Amino acid sequence: MAKANHKLHIIPLGGLGEIGKNMTVIRYGDDMIVVDAGLMFPEDDMLGIDLVIPDISYLLENRDSLRAIFLTHGHEDHIGALPYVLKQLDVPVYGTRLTLGILQGRLKEANVSSASLRAVKAGDNVQAGRFSVGFMRVNHSIADAVALSIDTPLGTIVHTGDFKLDHTPVDGQVTDFHRMAELGNKGVLALMADSTNAERPGFTPSERSVGVKFDEHFQQAQGRIIIATFSSNVHRIQQAIEAAHRHNRKVAVIGRSMQNVVGIAMELGYLTVPEGIMIDIDEIGNYPAEQIVVMTTGSQGEPMSALTRMAMGEHRKVEIYPGDTVIISATPIPGNEKGVAKTVDLLFRQGANVIYEKTSGIHVSGHASQEELKLVHNLLRPKYFIPVHGEYRHLIKHKKLAESLGMPKENIFVGENGSVIEITPRGAAINGKVTAGKVLVDGLGVGDIGNIVLRDRRQLSQDGILIVVITVDKQHCTVVAGPDIVSRGFVYVRESERLMDEARDKVAAVLQRCEDSRVTEWAMIKSSVRETLSRFLYEKIRRRPMILPIIMEV
Amino acid sequence: MAKANHKLHIIPLGGLGEIGKNMTVIRYGDDMIVVDAGLMFPEDDMLGIDLVIPDISYLLENRDSLRAIFLTHGHEDHIGALPYVLKQLDVPVYGTRLTLGILQGRLKEANVSSASLRAVKAGDNVQAGRFSVGFMRVNHSIADAVALSIDTPLGTIVHTGDFKLDHTPVDGQVTDFHRMAELGNKGVLALMADSTNAERPGFTPSERSVGVKFDEHFQQAQGRIIIATFSSNVHRIQQAIEAAHRHNRKVAVIGRSMQNVVGIAMELGYLTVPEGIMIDIDEIGNYPAEQIVVMTTGSQGEPMSALTRMAMGEHRKVEIYPGDTVIISATPIPGNEKGVAKTVDLLFRQGANVIYEKTSGIHVSGHASQEELKLVHNLLRPKYFIPVHGEYRHLIKHKKLAESLGMPKENIFVGENGSVIEITPRGAAINGKVTAGKVLVDGLGVGDIGNIVLRDRRQLSQDGILIVVITVDKQHCTVVAGPDIVSRGFVYVRESERLMDEARDKVAAVLQRCEDSRVTEWAMIKSSVRETLSRFLYEKIRRRPMILPIIMEV
Repeated sequence: MAKANHKLHIIPLGGLGEIGKNMTVIRYGDDMIVVDAGLMFPEDDMLGIDLVIPDISYLLENRDSLRAIFLTHGHEDHIGALPYVLKQLDVPVYGTRLTLGILQGRLKEANVSSASLRAVKAGDNVQAGRFSVGFMRVNHSIADAVALSIDTPLGTIVHTGDFKLDHTPVDGQVTDFHRMAELGNKGVLALMADSTNAERPGFTPSERSVGVKFDEHFQQAQGRIIIATFSSNVHRIQQAIEAAHRHNRKVAVIGRSMQNVVGIAMELGYLTVPEGIMIDIDEIGNYPAEQIVVMTTGSQGEPMSALTRMAMGEHRKVEIYPGDTVIISATPIPGNEKGVAKTVDLLFRQGANVIYEKTSGIHVSGHASQEELKLVHNLLRPKYFIPVHGEYRHLIKHKKLAESLGMPKENIFVGENGSVIEITPRGAAINGKVTAGKVLVDGLGVGDIGNIVLRDRRQLSQDGILIVVITVDKQHCTVVAGPDIVSRGFVYVRESERLMDEARDKVAAVLQRCEDSRVTEWAMIKSSVRETLSRFLYEKIRRRPMILPIIMEV
Repeated sequence: MAKANHKLHIIPLGGLGEIGKNMTVIRYGDDMIVVDAGLMFPEDDMLGIDLVIPDISYLLENRDSLRAIFLTHGHEDHIGALPYVLKQLDVPVYGTRLTLGILQGRLKEANVSSASLRAVKAGDNVQAGRFSVGFMRVNHSIADAVALSIDTPLGTIVHTGDFKLDHTPVDGQVTDFHRMAELGNKGVLALMADSTNAERPGFTPSERSVGVKFDEHFQQAQGRIIIATFSSNVHRIQQAIEAAHRHNRKVAVIGRSMQNVVGIAMELGYLTVPEGIMIDIDEIGNYPAEQIVVMTTGSQGEPMSALTRMAMGEHRKVEIYPGDTVIISATPIPGNEKGVAKTVDLLFRQGANVIYEKTSGIHVSGHASQEELKLVHNLLRPKYFIPVHGEYRHLIKHKKLAESLGMPKENIFVGENGSVIEITPRGAAINGKVTAGKVLVDGLGVGDIGNIVLRDRRQLSQDGILIVVITVDKQHCTVVAGPDIVSRGFVYVRESERLMDEARDKVAAVLQRCEDSRVTEWAMIKSSVRETLSRFLYEKIRRRPMILPIIMEV
């Protein structure tokens, strides 16, 4: 391994040029560790896809070098690929207790063993090959988040994970500024830092500011209060419970994922719940409206979520009554704006008072804004900087921010997933590329949906399909049944009988021409049918359905 | 018509509970007029649909009473349904010159005559049956916008159209506050007012503030400047041209819809263009980069727009060079956020400096914020109020705003499309409902796509389709060919051969069972195939493709 000596490789396998499926490989010689293994939700054009995970071919090819996976926190975009990864790789996974608690639930659902999980706490150090990995407390929209300081033979790398700097965190656990200062003093070789909010000027407000707003709304609310938020935001839930306690309300939790997280967080001590305040959702009818808070999922307007079903009047256990106050304590993730707006409209129609505006202070981000990023850069004073966790513009904004602090351009590396960022004692550069990409998960199928299937789904979704079936006598090359045309998603046939009759005539004419000119190659006949029909339909109605000729031989 | 006397009906046919397809009927006895006839862009779940127009059954049923259509301004959501409406109704259409100029282009594309268009200007009055309609200047993100004051036998109705109050409009045409004050003094029976921005506190900034920002960016820009905005925003284009003039740059326009509007606006005198500043897009290569401004469409990240194609490096005439400044002078319309973000990312990847942030002041809204709405309410002092142009939450916010000004709750009517708001000398109430709804346009098909087709497209888009074809001998009830299974959008068959083989075996077994038990009803066999295959695939792979059995008889 002499060749590999004195070469440190940082290889992002996900999270660059995208929000989601965060995963980074750090390698020195034949020692390799991984930071996070997240999933991503599908893009709009990935029809029918449930989720997207990173391509881990590189890990599989180098499995003998893989020493451990380190997790920064328990969000899906950092741990969600592990059920798939751990099916293929036997490797220890280190994370804080809440992170592993949430992960354990996911692994159980996927029938994957949790035997490789190893709990750590902020301040701990773990040896993995020639790496020594330290866990530093940071703040984020989930409890028990950490940044990593990774000692390597060439120097220390810091990976922030997702973070913000909250001077008044709900759990009192301030970001470990002291450790960062110490690291900065000793010298940091490279920094990888969260770029999600690199576009936002100023400071992200403290999580506690949301609690203040909760109190204001609790003060005014006459009827029940229903709060929707991200199920993993334990601090938000804590603040809602405290506000409920101050205003003599009981709290019921609904929505499977929130019930799960609340259960885990209570069990592990991340939620402090006053005696007797939690009630079962079935008990809410036993209390007057002004004594009830319901905590629920659905802050993103997800079609099957508890809040959406309540808004549609279809929830089995919670109806919305006029006078209820619904607080949507979240901001729509890009792409969910219309779904959330629809939910708000439906809630208003049910007579609820809905608190949802961005400006109303009932949500704060979990990611550092520009001034926080600057502070971390100045504390750590890294030699090299690799912006991570962000779409391309976020990475560029973060790069510019670092430049504005005096960092030389050539020491900043905006890579792609798969880029090999190579650091040696003499310098650093992007040097090569390994396999990286998107693996699509649809139902139980992992990676079996590719571009062709997606392209077909897109075409089917736009103008539907026409199936043309013909049965031919193989010996005499004559049509013995059909052409029959069946369509789905094209037109409502009963109202378009004439169009369909004309289409059938067109096909019959093509078949006749083929018979007359003794064309007997099925492929040629099919393509002739497809072309004629396609042209006819486009002229008639300006649509381009998929046309699928099927020839049966008897 | 004695019964209808003393009854005024206001019937919104579109624009309530939605942003788009604005259309309102006002009727007194057998006199009926319509305000605007707009289209709407399809919702996410309307797969393959091009646009949505209001259902005008009510107009067709009452065509003999229809005296005229009045247009407030030239945006698609106010005029876009006219090509369809005028195919079915012969009725005069009144609008200002720019509005009609834009409409004329649309009608020509649709092969509909413009003979019924009648140009008016702000200050004019038009008699239509027992109605007298006055046109009042208002400001909006398109030039030549007007509000309507409609004198009826029961009093004056004011319809604001879309508006904002711009004290420093680019064309110097301030909203007609004096006329509003006069109307308020004389007494306004009912107000219909734009609710789009009823959620926003404060005042919407003046269009001129964008010009100031243009100057700042023009000052800094080294290379070419490319500005994307809404093609109909003539004042925005005017300001870009003026900034270009001040900074000694030539202006080229690209994108069909923008070229059209600029052509019309120059011809009609709505754009004031310094001599020699406009150049053809083919000439931009003849000038140094720092002397060029390109105005383009694509501010919404539309896949086929000029800006998107430039961002992808696929535009035939404009490439993006490192050092170019791209200004996206627009805010994403809800639903377009991801498309715009993708375009910004691609532009950054091409090396452009992209100015796009909401906070950067390079876009202002065209709709009145809360303080502007309050001023209009207080100037007009209407007896009744009907919030229009907005999703449900906007209407509710606007209602609450009116209440906060002292208007009695019972005088405010939040209706639905089709609601009949009946005003008599004794009072007002929502009294009944007429046919109203969405007509979907897909290609040349208007209204031929219904729920069944959309549901099929949704299923096809999620998991694709499996077609099972069998040829049977009608006489002996035996299978003579097949079962053949063809799939599209389900799995990539080459990689899933075993699954498809197993599926075929399942179908064969069903057919065998049917044959054994002498089931010969095709419908029963089909449903048996569908059920068995569906259950098998869900168990195997957790997908639910559409399954379409086809039986051919020979």
